[in-house]
Amino acid sequence: MISGPIGIFDSGLGGLTVYREIRKVLPFEDIVYFGDTMRVPYGNKSTQTIREFSKQITEFLVSLGVKLIVVACNTVSANAMDSVKKTAGSIKVVGVIEPGVKDAVSATENKRIIVTGTRATVNSKAYSRFIHEIDSEITVKEIACPLFVPLVEEGFVSGRVAELVIEKYLGKFKKSYYDTLILGCTHYPLLKKTIKKVLPSVKIIDSSVSCAVTVKNLLEKEKLLNFKKRNGKSVFYVSDRPQNFVELSYRLTGIKICKINIKRF
Amino acid sequence: MISGPIGIFDSGLGGLTVYREIRKVLPFEDIVYFGDTMRVPYGNKSTQTIREFSKQITEFLVSLGVKLIVVACNTVSANAMDSVKKTAGSIKVVGVIEPGVKDAVSATENKRIIVTGTRATVNSKAYSRFIHEIDSEITVKEIACPLFVPLVEEGFVSGRVAELVIEKYLGKFKKSYYDTLILGCTHYPLLKKTIKKVLPSVKIIDSSVSCAVTVKNLLEKEKLLNFKKRNGKSVFYVSDRPQNFVELSYRLTGIKICKINIKRF
Repeated sequence: MISGPIGIFDSGLGGLTVYREIRKVLPFEDIVYFGDTMRVPYGNKSTQTIREFSKQITEFLVSLGVKLIVVACNTVSANAMDSVKKTAGSIKVVGVIEPGVKDAVSATENKRIIVTGTRATVNSKAYSRFIHEIDSEITVKEIACPLFVPLVEEGFVSGRVAELVIEKYLGKFKKSYYDTLILGCTHYPLLKKTIKKVLPSVKIIDSSVSCAVTVKNLLEKEKLLNFKKRNGKSVFYVSDRPQNFVELSYRLTGIKICKINIKRF
Repeated sequence: MISGPIGIFDSGLGGLTVYREIRKVLPFEDIVYFGDTMRVPYGNKSTQTIREFSKQITEFLVSLGVKLIVVACNTVSANAMDSVKKTAGSIKVVGVIEPGVKDAVSATENKRIIVTGTRATVNSKAYSRFIHEIDSEITVKEIACPLFVPLVEEGFVSGRVAELVIEKYLGKFKKSYYDTLILGCTHYPLLKKTIKKVLPSVKIIDSSVSCAVTVKNLLEKEKLLNFKKRNGKSVFYVSDRPQNFVELSYRLTGIKICKINIKRF
């Protein structure tokens, strides 16, 4: 079990922002990454569909012998964690919402937080719920930004188009008193610099770093850390257009994927 | 057989532009429309995936007893017509590419045509092939505009964001000598006015009108026209988020859908 890989999944390449942080803090672990490029984006799908797709992917990762599952997708974390956990059985599951929430609650000085996410994440109100569990006095504004994922998947992470779309969704916060903003989708860190340009005075919380720390702590606690002092292997699976995934992952995240596999459902 | 409905399908709501024109010229026919909202967009998927999805939908329409199938999606028309035809058996199939091509070839005065489409449509080179079959002297420039479908599906059909994205893909043609542009995706007619604003002197070809005429002529030729003088029924199916489809279809195309059904694969 200790030698099993960590399983990470996302609807597409957004989860690579989480992969990158996990790889940094856990260099010896083997990792299996799955990106559902055939069915991306998830953020505009119904809860039922998101749960169905997540279940299929979890079953696939379990069949590969993973020792831990990281749901590197806020839409799934917000809408299907119970279904993923049930399918995973005794295998522990880590989502991306709680780690980001903790960081944001620590960061806000005036108790006002903006949450950006897909429509499905915002509709679930999962962020508001988690934030209010920690501090019920915080004012939360959840904003759906459904064009952000297509922008990222098409490589529009900076420039006038990206700026204008960000302006459209978030421009109204330029003169507001919200001091903290959560990137509530693993694609959004790739737009971070451009968001910062539009809202320069707001603290931006990227949950991928704290998610990676959570994963490390959990493996430690469960005595599942791999102590073999050799570089961990990374195996990548996508459900469609592998070459495009390899190219975009290098261009957007700097991650070089030498070998990529296809898994279709 | 004469009393069977016409089956129309698309990846999402773009095909409603074709539905609208068919309804105008064939008011007495029953129509079944299927939009694959669970798996939209198709334009960035691989040929294999597009063929698989199209086959499933064709089987579904055949099971409903349709007398003719209209592929109201350029991506499918460009990549999977043979597969749709094979699955449809003796039922006739009409795509959207050939009707648009004929109109464009008639319209161009200087034999220079721009074709806009999804990445999958452009990669297939189906438009260039069809155009050159009619006139090999025409210069064709095919341009993939992968953000157009998400823009339309999110309701950004006019305004600065839409203009800037159009400018990004097509701005270079402002001072070119191309006099004709084909909207090579059934979502794009919803952006027509905004495209016209960016390229005011170019003739824009929307194949939905000529596709509807092709359908009417074919039914006539095959002696499949329904002469019952009563308004034809329209039945709509989507694979996900029916309510969103109803709202957007009214907002973007003016089509009022009273009843919508779900068909999942």
